Amino acid sequence: MTEPNINYAPDSISEQFTQIQDLAERLLPVYAQPDVEQNSDYIQLVELLHDLHPADMAAVLESLPLQERVLVWKLAQPEDDGEVLLEVSDSVRETLIETMGKEELIAAVEDLPAAEVAELAPDLPQNVVSEVLESRDEEERQQIQSTMSYAEDTVGSIMDYELVSIRADVTCEVVLRYLRRFDILPDHTDKIFVVDEDDILQGVLPIRKLLVCDPDDLVADVMSSDVVKFRPEDNAEEAAQAFEKYDLITAPVIDETQKLIGRLTVDEMLDVIREESEADMLNMAGLQEEEDLFAPVIDSVKNRWVWLAVNLCTALVASRVIGLFEGSIEKIVALAALMPIVAGIGGNSGNQTITMIVRALATGQLNGTQPLQLFKKEIGVAIANGVLWGSAMGIITFIIYKEIGLSLVMIAAMTLNLVLAAALGVLIPLTMEKLGKDPALGSSVLITAVTDSGGFFIFLGLASLFLL
Amino acid sequence: MTEPNINYAPDSISEQFTQIQDLAERLLPVYAQPDVEQNSDYIQLVELLHDLHPADMAAVLESLPLQERVLVWKLAQPEDDGEVLLEVSDSVRETLIETMGKEELIAAVEDLPAAEVAELAPDLPQNVVSEVLESRDEEERQQIQSTMSYAEDTVGSIMDYELVSIRADVTCEVVLRYLRRFDILPDHTDKIFVVDEDDILQGVLPIRKLLVCDPDDLVADVMSSDVVKFRPEDNAEEAAQAFEKYDLITAPVIDETQKLIGRLTVDEMLDVIREESEADMLNMAGLQEEEDLFAPVIDSVKNRWVWLAVNLCTALVASRVIGLFEGSIEKIVALAALMPIVAGIGGNSGNQTITMIVRALATGQLNGTQPLQLFKKEIGVAIANGVLWGSAMGIITFIIYKEIGLSLVMIAAMTLNLVLAAALGVLIPLTMEKLGKDPALGSSVLITAVTDSGGFFIFLGLASLFLL
Repeated sequence: MTEPNINYAPDSISEQFTQIQDLAERLLPVYAQPDVEQNSDYIQLVELLHDLHPADMAAVLESLPLQERVLVWKLAQPEDDGEVLLEVSDSVRETLIETMGKEELIAAVEDLPAAEVAELAPDLPQNVVSEVLESRDEEERQQIQSTMSYAEDTVGSIMDYELVSIRADVTCEVVLRYLRRFDILPDHTDKIFVVDEDDILQGVLPIRKLLVCDPDDLVADVMSSDVVKFRPEDNAEEAAQAFEKYDLITAPVIDETQKLIGRLTVDEMLDVIREESEADMLNMAGLQEEEDLFAPVIDSVKNRWVWLAVNLCTALVASRVIGLFEGSIEKIVALAALMPIVAGIGGNSGNQTITMIVRALATGQLNGTQPLQLFKKEIGVAIANGVLWGSAMGIITFIIYKEIGLSLVMIAAMTLNLVLAAALGVLIPLTMEKLGKDPALGSSVLITAVTDSGGFFIFLGLASLFLL
Repeated sequence: MTEPNINYAPDSISEQFTQIQDLAERLLPVYAQPDVEQNSDYIQLVELLHDLHPADMAAVLESLPLQERVLVWKLAQPEDDGEVLLEVSDSVRETLIETMGKEELIAAVEDLPAAEVAELAPDLPQNVVSEVLESRDEEERQQIQSTMSYAEDTVGSIMDYELVSIRADVTCEVVLRYLRRFDILPDHTDKIFVVDEDDILQGVLPIRKLLVCDPDDLVADVMSSDVVKFRPEDNAEEAAQAFEKYDLITAPVIDETQKLIGRLTVDEMLDVIREESEADMLNMAGLQEEEDLFAPVIDSVKNRWVWLAVNLCTALVASRVIGLFEGSIEKIVALAALMPIVAGIGGNSGNQTITMIVRALATGQLNGTQPLQLFKKEIGVAIANGVLWGSAMGIITFIIYKEIGLSLVMIAAMTLNLVLAAALGVLIPLTMEKLGKDPALGSSVLITAVTDSGGFFIFLGLASLFLL
């Protein structure tokens, strides 16, 4: 995508958004009328939409309720449709594609490069995809199909094919003359790939070196021959981390024979980082995927049911643990009021430990060689917190119930549950990592389940032992 | 930082890490001996460290326990020290700077450009900072002081001063000749800034246009005159969103007179996005800031105490709510076992709603004009979930306790608590945003507090009304 010809000003953009939302709302009831094109709201809305960058158009569409969204989408300029479809979230993209006919969809993706067609293809109707494939030449068709064949989280699925490559045995002067034959260089071109006659990658020539080198220098003498390069099977998140670490703008993608087949660009990596962190956040909150704000109720229920069900199951287990001690609660009813405190602090503290460890695993700081030291440290923190907060709650318990035994049980139970939370807060994510599972995903639910049931068991168990 | 001359291979890097950790651990007990430099572990370790890119060195240091970390840091090449200090996390940076003398610190930051000196300065001893400032020329001194004067989350604090600028009335040929006088262009240079004699920004000349244009073309005819530009007071996160939206590599920073004063680069924006999402994740889990994995216990306790204290207070409130109904629990002890289920599902569901809304606010999809529609939708989802899961739990309750009244109270309480969670899940983040507070920060704690106390109150209240 080209850079927008706009003065970036967040305030004026948000003002425009509000205006578009208002206009769309007012226009909705009269949109079916034949003379709508003379309507002043209509004229104003079309004008506002006309000036929007595709990325801003995407944001407007995501912020609109369904009916208004469809209305605005119909008024958008068709030549930008493909770009906008690429920018919106998956759930919103579906709602937009549903409103488009076959010809409209074909027109929308017509001008997109191979990699972006491949990105949209899974969401398009089959007959549209086949027709689009037929309209491309053999090379592009292969690129589209090859991109689609890679799994979503691999480098292959996000690379593009807009390569500028040269030979090592020419001079910088020749390279500059060669580049001048382009209408414009591909987006993000910060280096030119140096290949031999079989397209085997020899090195890269950074533009910032090309611009300062002597015209008579050979590319071979100026290029960097050791470069950060990727394979299409590589994990996209790891590639994004390498981009971050080594401050890359673009990087070559090669096959097993070192042949240059594509490139990665930093803008795709930004998306990977954003999506990764959003996925973690959504998973931690128990949402399966990003949700269209204005999705129908039934879609939202579907997106959220799994974690609610898991939560109900763990709550049921905790409830049965309490059930074991109904006799004790009948005798000392204060136990019922105090037990959620023990469970709560364990869950809170366990989640603190787990978050720190999940983060360290994600950034590669922790690779399983130092668990003992971590373990000791977390147990130490748990005991310190147990003595600190346990004593505080012990005093409060005594003030309310005037029972020194109950206070002591409270202190002991809180400390033990904090130690349990610390131990499992270290073990659960490390075990998940060893088993090849995503430690971010289930860890928080698991630790809360353990500290709830464990907290109730420890507290009610100690009370039954010592107070009855 | 320049691009590393390495073959990127995550597996071999993680192997190197393990090797370095092992060597450091073995070397620790013998390090004080005089002939340590003949030790084969020593020689091997120094060699391994010598080949590391500063970013990888930073990652190694973060992954090591304190004593080993200090050992490795002493063996690192001093010329890279400044780069490494910039790459490590704040908490690890402190532990490294503590081990360095004044001269060492001055040597480490000597070669860094102004913007990076400013980034390190707050962590350096005052006498080091003054000496470094004295060693720079007037312009750089002003740049360092000006960068330090901006708040941490502003564009001003992360911009750099490595500008390449030209006049609009010269030809592309002249520009190319001018660029050739540089040894190398600044990192990330994807565009040249076009200014007038007073440094007022006129436009930008993208390198990818410069390389294809006719040598006799005037810059004024080739440049883009409307560009995405920022002010030093702008919010860094909003700037990062603009970089993402418009696929930028660099962007000019101007003052109120449109004078060019600095530039933003995409690598800093990657850091902003990463830090922002990490901060959200840490905050959601109740950690105040990123923690050094191997921090002393006391530091960890300090980092975590605030949220544990908040959690204890809300748990205490919930406990007092239960206390109100001790009479009812004494009569029907099953209530004690069932009440955590009602509270739990409310918290879970409320957090789902809040996460979705916090995300929509963060990405600008939601700007406060559509709350009613959202509200209706979330209440709808809550009622659907209440009927679905309430009935499931009603049946389970009946199977366990054989009490139809208890089952009906369970269904009603779960549905009501889900509706409460949905209403506050919409209201809390929108209100926080209106009040200018960060909706990510306290929302999760607040909603859980409400659904816990509310859930206990609704369930025990209904039971007291209808079952006693």
